[in-house]
Amino acid sequence: MRMIDLIEKKRDGQSLTEEEIRFLIKGYTEGDIPDYQMASFLMAVYFQGMSPEETAQLTMEMVKSGEQIDLSTIKGIKVDKHSTGGVGDTTTLVLAPLVAAVGVPVAKMSGRGLGHTGGTIDKLESIPGFHVEVDNKEFIRLVNENRIAVIGQSGNLTPADKKLYALRDVTGTVNSIPLIASSVMSKKIASGSDAIVLDVKLGAGAFMKNIDDARRLAEEMVEIGKRVGRKVMAVISDMSQPLGYAVGNALEVKEAIDTLKGEGPADLKELCLTLGSHMICLAGKAQTPAEARNMLEEVIESGKALEKFKQFLRAQGGDDSCADHPEKLLTAGYVMEVEAKEDGIVSAITANQIGTAAMMLGAGRATKESEIDLAVGLVLNKKIGDPVKKGESLVTIYSNRESVSDVTGKIYNAFTISREPVQVPVLVYDVITAGNK
Amino acid sequence: MRMIDLIEKKRDGQSLTEEEIRFLIKGYTEGDIPDYQMASFLMAVYFQGMSPEETAQLTMEMVKSGEQIDLSTIKGIKVDKHSTGGVGDTTTLVLAPLVAAVGVPVAKMSGRGLGHTGGTIDKLESIPGFHVEVDNKEFIRLVNENRIAVIGQSGNLTPADKKLYALRDVTGTVNSIPLIASSVMSKKIASGSDAIVLDVKLGAGAFMKNIDDARRLAEEMVEIGKRVGRKVMAVISDMSQPLGYAVGNALEVKEAIDTLKGEGPADLKELCLTLGSHMICLAGKAQTPAEARNMLEEVIESGKALEKFKQFLRAQGGDDSCADHPEKLLTAGYVMEVEAKEDGIVSAITANQIGTAAMMLGAGRATKESEIDLAVGLVLNKKIGDPVKKGESLVTIYSNRESVSDVTGKIYNAFTISREPVQVPVLVYDVITAGNK
Repeated sequence: MRMIDLIEKKRDGQSLTEEEIRFLIKGYTEGDIPDYQMASFLMAVYFQGMSPEETAQLTMEMVKSGEQIDLSTIKGIKVDKHSTGGVGDTTTLVLAPLVAAVGVPVAKMSGRGLGHTGGTIDKLESIPGFHVEVDNKEFIRLVNENRIAVIGQSGNLTPADKKLYALRDVTGTVNSIPLIASSVMSKKIASGSDAIVLDVKLGAGAFMKNIDDARRLAEEMVEIGKRVGRKVMAVISDMSQPLGYAVGNALEVKEAIDTLKGEGPADLKELCLTLGSHMICLAGKAQTPAEARNMLEEVIESGKALEKFKQFLRAQGGDDSCADHPEKLLTAGYVMEVEAKEDGIVSAITANQIGTAAMMLGAGRATKESEIDLAVGLVLNKKIGDPVKKGESLVTIYSNRESVSDVTGKIYNAFTISREPVQVPVLVYDVITAGNK
Repeated sequence: MRMIDLIEKKRDGQSLTEEEIRFLIKGYTEGDIPDYQMASFLMAVYFQGMSPEETAQLTMEMVKSGEQIDLSTIKGIKVDKHSTGGVGDTTTLVLAPLVAAVGVPVAKMSGRGLGHTGGTIDKLESIPGFHVEVDNKEFIRLVNENRIAVIGQSGNLTPADKKLYALRDVTGTVNSIPLIASSVMSKKIASGSDAIVLDVKLGAGAFMKNIDDARRLAEEMVEIGKRVGRKVMAVISDMSQPLGYAVGNALEVKEAIDTLKGEGPADLKELCLTLGSHMICLAGKAQTPAEARNMLEEVIESGKALEKFKQFLRAQGGDDSCADHPEKLLTAGYVMEVEAKEDGIVSAITANQIGTAAMMLGAGRATKESEIDLAVGLVLNKKIGDPVKKGESLVTIYSNRESVSDVTGKIYNAFTISREPVQVPVLVYDVITAGNK
């Protein structure tokens, strides 16, 4: 088999066979296929796409390229959740203790990643004492005992995906739906869960900018699950403005705690209830999303969700008193307000600009080497549809540097204030299951 | 400027600016842009194409990447000719002395190249004593004195094109019209001629398989000439069957000599008269192709064309008695006939299969390291439209090995014999000039 023939086959719009995809991924991972041939292949995929068979096959070859986590000694159906990435996305911090409180085992391995803020494990490290380096045996013990553990990714998961992603990043081939779908799914499948709930973000702050693309991505990921024998469903949710109010690591932990108490932002709570109810259904703990939703609301009201969060913190060495005294979390040196310059109604908050503003403060990583400042970030005081008066605060900045005029400029750019009535964006656009496509 | 932005721009169907193309070619030639980024860029060009401005700019940046031959001390308008490559293409061997005999200066630098047979300079080396290593000063002296010299390419011409072509060859991006057009034109422009006649081959034995593609390629090359100030025109000619009868180095030299005497194959002679008359017009030696054609027929009839060929051989150390005694050219050890197995009319001779058969005998190079056997090759005894009887020879094989059953098999595969009347293919499909597009 020759790589040049596979490139030309894909370029000409044909599908690769199982054997050809195996050759491709094995050859690339082992260094027999050079970067330049893979790069032209990826650009051909960008233009010609991949069939459902090819995408599932690619996913499984990437899974097989490395270690696969064995969670079989954890009792019950293990459900994982994945978001395609947005700004101020605090859902995992809320969902993990929330569904664990209902009895669903949550065995989550998380990466640090690049972006506007840190990954879930970065955020958790803003809690004094909390640690994410846990070995596999202890990880499984914790989940069996408490129904919850969130740890840093260890081991060599999907090395083929890592190598491919690094190449896509520098060759203009990130934004291809089958390549995104197989990348996400390979990581989730290698992490060992039985079922996966996907949160596909749609809007200016997300990879997917229109509903058709978001739906295609969701459908392709659900289809992969079907073909490889995992229960997968996807929710398409709004990322035209940031989710919740907080954008920043410690700030998002505080917001998650508020939400577990029933006091968080309405949109964050609503999305957590939607995603969580599907997780509970996939885990077989409820028959319908409505029944599951009642169970989730009950554990919030009764305080069981917050109690589960505290137990989770204690089990991984964290100071659980943070849950009642959030001032114990890392705090920034300067707190400043960004004031509205005119009266009106907020009609747009460009999510990626808000994300960039947070990154400029130090809340996220621009490169793998960047160090994160867990204390800094932004809290929105207004969201789309809110009336605002000149001089009122649009955003509160939490900074460790005094001069933030660059950040303030970005924030003003992100906001649009209108004099006309404004349509508030839908939060959940669609739900895609293996049955309804 | 970042390469990733140029890749995404092209991927999204936009045109690059002059400055961006300069960055691209300079960066790649100097090794600042890695192969994998150029590979994904080339595949994006394959799908999105390039504008006429971009193609001309790319051509000139490749010209500027290396040496440019200065022919200004040669008196008169220097006309070059280029064929996009086919099987049994003996035109240059005929055309160079033919137009020189009319007084047009022919200063030709030629490569050895890969393919079914050698390049023009390989073919000339089948003449005892002939040498192609001539320095630039002597080259110019020869052209000024005799109106003709054909030498091997020296110096560092279009290194950017060489590097790009090597990458295209292994990344499935050879067959892109703007990339082919800029590659051909960069080499011709760097070689220093004032005017260029292009012979774009169409059919199974050529890059271009349909008339629309051939026309687009011809138009793009003519357009490049217009934009960079060279007179360029193109003839689209048939390559569904081999041109002439001979496929092989010494065999083609003999055929060229026959043609210069007015005794060669009709199609080869006709194409040489067509291309030659346009060369003479571009050189300003005639007002119309018809007038030029008369001049060419006159030098063939009067023997001046053959005399010019002999002078050319003598000037570069060759034995000019070969022209009258072609048996002095290199000859093969075995001569064998491939006999027809049935009566009928020849309806197809797949040119690339005939070419492969010649290469199997050793007439061409499969890799840069292969050695050519200048004596071997094939001579067609039948062409499309010719009636044939069982047992008559279709092809004569000139070989230096006794067993040629592999070659015979290829030749039988190439021929189709029909019982129905057959349409003989058109020889010249179209003529593209800067005025008529």
